[in-house]
Amino acid sequence: MCIFCKIVNYEIPATIVYDNDDVIAFRDLHPKAPLHVLIIPKRHISSVNDVVEGDAAALGQLFVAARAVAEAEGVAKSGYRLVMNTGAHAGQTVDHIHLHILAGRAMTWPPG
Amino acid sequence: MCIFCKIVNYEIPATIVYDNDDVIAFRDLHPKAPLHVLIIPKRHISSVNDVVEGDAAALGQLFVAARAVAEAEGVAKSGYRLVMNTGAHAGQTVDHIHLHILAGRAMTWPPG
Repeated sequence: MCIFCKIVNYEIPATIVYDNDDVIAFRDLHPKAPLHVLIIPKRHISSVNDVVEGDAAALGQLFVAARAVAEAEGVAKSGYRLVMNTGAHAGQTVDHIHLHILAGRAMTWPPG
Repeated sequence: MCIFCKIVNYEIPATIVYDNDDVIAFRDLHPKAPLHVLIIPKRHISSVNDVVEGDAAALGQLFVAARAVAEAEGVAKSGYRLVMNTGAHAGQTVDHIHLHILAGRAMTWPPG
């Protein structure tokens, strides 16, 4: 079982900030901004390269969760960046889709 | 009407690379990587701060489109970064949700 599936199953600890039937969100262990949370679908999907039509509704919930996290953390007005990495060029480190939300500072462009 | 809604309505030109009932994708005018495409929902949503439950299925299609664009552009294996900006801290420049897909080079971390 992948490390994020273990978090979904509450088998390893994480600082969970959002949790519903479809998605769970928890703080990144190596934050790159004052707010850095990972939002993941509970169902294991390895990467965007594996996304099929039937995943759309569950993956759309990542954005619903992002809005909720931003509001709860007080960064909705100041702004936030959502990032999802796929493969080596982007630096994907865990093979379970995860949406980074970074906020609390001005983000530069390009995004890496 | 916002500039992206005009692209959705084919009222202003864009280099469209993907187009279906829910989403459209076109090349960024100021590319920050060898591949830089914007994927947007056809229905106007100003930002993630405006996302509601009923938007989830349409927004999930952004990931389905991202996979299709990555495959069509030949970057699925090498990898790609998806980015969505909300508000001033993240540098959102058009108030119509858009998912950046950047690829064709190694992306650094943090993402801006």
